Amino acid sequence: MNQRQEKATIMNHQADPSSDNAFLTAFHHVATIGATDNNGVDRQALTPEDKQTRDWMRAWAEAHSFEVRVDAIGNMFACLQLVPDASEASPAPDSPSGSADTSAAPYVLIGSHLDSQPLGGRFDGAYGVIAALFAALRVKEQLDESGQQPTFNLAVVNWFNEEGGRFAPSIMGSSVYAGLFDLDEMLAVTDLDGTSVAEALATIGYDGTDTPPEAITYAEIHIEQGRILEREATDIGVVESSWYTQKLDIDVLGEQSHTGATAMADRHDALVAAAKVVLAVAEVVDEFDDEALVSSVGQHVVEPNSPIVVPRRVHMVADLRSSDPAIVQTARDSLRTQIAEIARAHDITINVEDFDIRDKQPFPLEGVELAEKAVANEGLTIRRLETMAGHDSVAMNHRVPGVMMFVPSVDGVSHCEREFTTDEDMLRGVRVLTSVAGELVRGQLSEVRDGETWVGRSVAEARSSVTV
Amino acid sequence: MNQRQEKATIMNHQADPSSDNAFLTAFHHVATIGATDNNGVDRQALTPEDKQTRDWMRAWAEAHSFEVRVDAIGNMFACLQLVPDASEASPAPDSPSGSADTSAAPYVLIGSHLDSQPLGGRFDGAYGVIAALFAALRVKEQLDESGQQPTFNLAVVNWFNEEGGRFAPSIMGSSVYAGLFDLDEMLAVTDLDGTSVAEALATIGYDGTDTPPEAITYAEIHIEQGRILEREATDIGVVESSWYTQKLDIDVLGEQSHTGATAMADRHDALVAAAKVVLAVAEVVDEFDDEALVSSVGQHVVEPNSPIVVPRRVHMVADLRSSDPAIVQTARDSLRTQIAEIARAHDITINVEDFDIRDKQPFPLEGVELAEKAVANEGLTIRRLETMAGHDSVAMNHRVPGVMMFVPSVDGVSHCEREFTTDEDMLRGVRVLTSVAGELVRGQLSEVRDGETWVGRSVAEARSSVTV
Repeated sequence: MNQRQEKATIMNHQADPSSDNAFLTAFHHVATIGATDNNGVDRQALTPEDKQTRDWMRAWAEAHSFEVRVDAIGNMFACLQLVPDASEASPAPDSPSGSADTSAAPYVLIGSHLDSQPLGGRFDGAYGVIAALFAALRVKEQLDESGQQPTFNLAVVNWFNEEGGRFAPSIMGSSVYAGLFDLDEMLAVTDLDGTSVAEALATIGYDGTDTPPEAITYAEIHIEQGRILEREATDIGVVESSWYTQKLDIDVLGEQSHTGATAMADRHDALVAAAKVVLAVAEVVDEFDDEALVSSVGQHVVEPNSPIVVPRRVHMVADLRSSDPAIVQTARDSLRTQIAEIARAHDITINVEDFDIRDKQPFPLEGVELAEKAVANEGLTIRRLETMAGHDSVAMNHRVPGVMMFVPSVDGVSHCEREFTTDEDMLRGVRVLTSVAGELVRGQLSEVRDGETWVGRSVAEARSSVTV
Repeated sequence: MNQRQEKATIMNHQADPSSDNAFLTAFHHVATIGATDNNGVDRQALTPEDKQTRDWMRAWAEAHSFEVRVDAIGNMFACLQLVPDASEASPAPDSPSGSADTSAAPYVLIGSHLDSQPLGGRFDGAYGVIAALFAALRVKEQLDESGQQPTFNLAVVNWFNEEGGRFAPSIMGSSVYAGLFDLDEMLAVTDLDGTSVAEALATIGYDGTDTPPEAITYAEIHIEQGRILEREATDIGVVESSWYTQKLDIDVLGEQSHTGATAMADRHDALVAAAKVVLAVAEVVDEFDDEALVSSVGQHVVEPNSPIVVPRRVHMVADLRSSDPAIVQTARDSLRTQIAEIARAHDITINVEDFDIRDKQPFPLEGVELAEKAVANEGLTIRRLETMAGHDSVAMNHRVPGVMMFVPSVDGVSHCEREFTTDEDMLRGVRVLTSVAGELVRGQLSEVRDGETWVGRSVAEARSSVTV
């Protein structure tokens, strides 16, 4: 689609720009960017496809009178100034009123991320950003109609690199914004080809210099990626807390030799030892109740990876998650013991490092109740649950009070091309997000702030538990 | 080292160009090209480092009055015309004498390969090429001194891509020369970045157009890559036959999902199934006598290889080798049964294909006896053995009768940086190769030729058993 067609697609719905039809048209259009053969998308962070979705968001937002800002880590903010002027606006609760910095009220942020996994699904992230754009437009229309004066401004955010497939760690842009990751460290992170985040941002023209809007509260809607809502035929899930997660960096160091000429007894095959580690990670879940722990190895690179060379090295990343931090700790200790035993048996070295530890963290009860009220007003059903997946909302929950909601996923599958959510479920989510965002700009949830952070956690405390 | 220094290194030994000292200087100089931190080399086929060793060989050969030819697959031949002219030369035994095509006698080829594995050793291949250059020079000197008239010409060959780490299959250049692989198919082979052999040859300027010399017999010397000679304190090994080898292409097809959000019971993790396949390949050797079978997985690629995605696919290559073809067959059948069971248990697809089957093949007894005589004349010790590794000589053995000899490897290790052979053992090998090459240019071994091929095998028969 060229620029003219792009603009035509956006303009077609200007007659009723916030309608359900306009939302579905926009959502299914964005799903064509980086589309794969099997109805998925491939839009890893800072690829040409990521640039295309960003360009679409900028064009759409500007066509609907949002002001677009891009910060130094590439987060995009489509801002709506709802509070007219310094003298009329309510100052942020923690800012001394009357100072020059309070000329604009802080922002309620709503959004998610437009990047995807390689061969990922159309819904993960993109749904939350596009739902937020339409929710913001509807909130503005309602305020314009009612003449009501909101307390805060509203911005839709597309967080940089939530997926982390190309640049690790994941949830990068929101974690920098929330103060959990250091900006310069993240700009220096490189992909497997040695390209840095800073270089890749510049390449697609999203190395921004804008000051991001100051957040007061945060809301996000996302697909569940599990099957609880589908199984119970519930419309909306609201997240009470995130799971405890940690990763293990496992480096198996054997010795390279000839697959033909070297006797079996003389080998130190890194891949054979690594295979035992992979099985240990998979089977450690059997030490606990069903589904109390999930574990996996997603990244696994063999060197030198030649058909006639016995591998010298396997570098892998294991991922452990549970609602109960003690279960992850017990599993991790069990794995370290088993891995040491494997290293001894194969007479090779296996180095294991803990990293990317993310504490279990409650979302504010006031936010859960706010979502429940909004869902009830819409005549829909809701249940509380936990999130096993990491989300931008989990990072933001360290900085400001937030609300995290889910819509159902068919078969519970995600991070793959057959990820699916129905149009009806997506539209229900847009309605609920609109209602929640409307309450947030009126000041709801902002009172649980305490100093610079909300009462749940301090950023300093959270940061000490996150190792990159 | 710049070109002027390179020339100075070559010229320093012109006073006694074929001396032991000159050989060792040349060998240890070539080991500096693509040198790694731990005394190995990294000179994969058609890399800048491969070009540097090729440029060195060309400069050395031309400085010593060899005529250098490069054929279409990038094999390099340094030719010495020892048989003066058409009217004086002995025609090839299978050519009708007096025809226009017999104006030059065919060539005895001696050599090996200058390319290496990634992080490979200094000796594998390079020793055989450099030994052959010095052996050829010595044979010429001896003929010049004695005034003897040889039957055949002599050429030193550097075969293209013996290692196959970058472009599969291995033993590519000699197999094309021997008529086992198709030239155009091999030129179209691509590396993991999508670069073809044809493109990579052109990039380094070795996309040759010369007609290669016509071989009448072949000899090669190589490091053993095992520990039999070292254990028995024997100077030289002579190869009676190659092992039977085959590869299995194994494609494990699961389903991509989220490492956090997807329940363990809902996953189809390709890597967990692949780990069981890797262990099955490693453990199948236990079904046979000690060291009767060697097996391994050298290449193993995970997709999408993201820390927070359950892998959808693992593509791997397993390698099975034995002196006894029936053992490989039994192992292969056992693996196919086990792999089918793993696929069933994990409810995923695993495709298995046989490829790169290389039959067990005897080297001509006359060649073995020729080597034994040469070794006895030098006052050294020798034993017969089999080769488990593939070699250019194994491919050439389909085309013309050949002699394959080994010098000892310290600790038997190879395809790694700590591969080692002493200077003394290398010099003994040069003496024996000189003696064998001298006999070959006098006509030895050429009488086992029968029509276009030697009596052992026809090329057509061999080709039918080699699937790329």
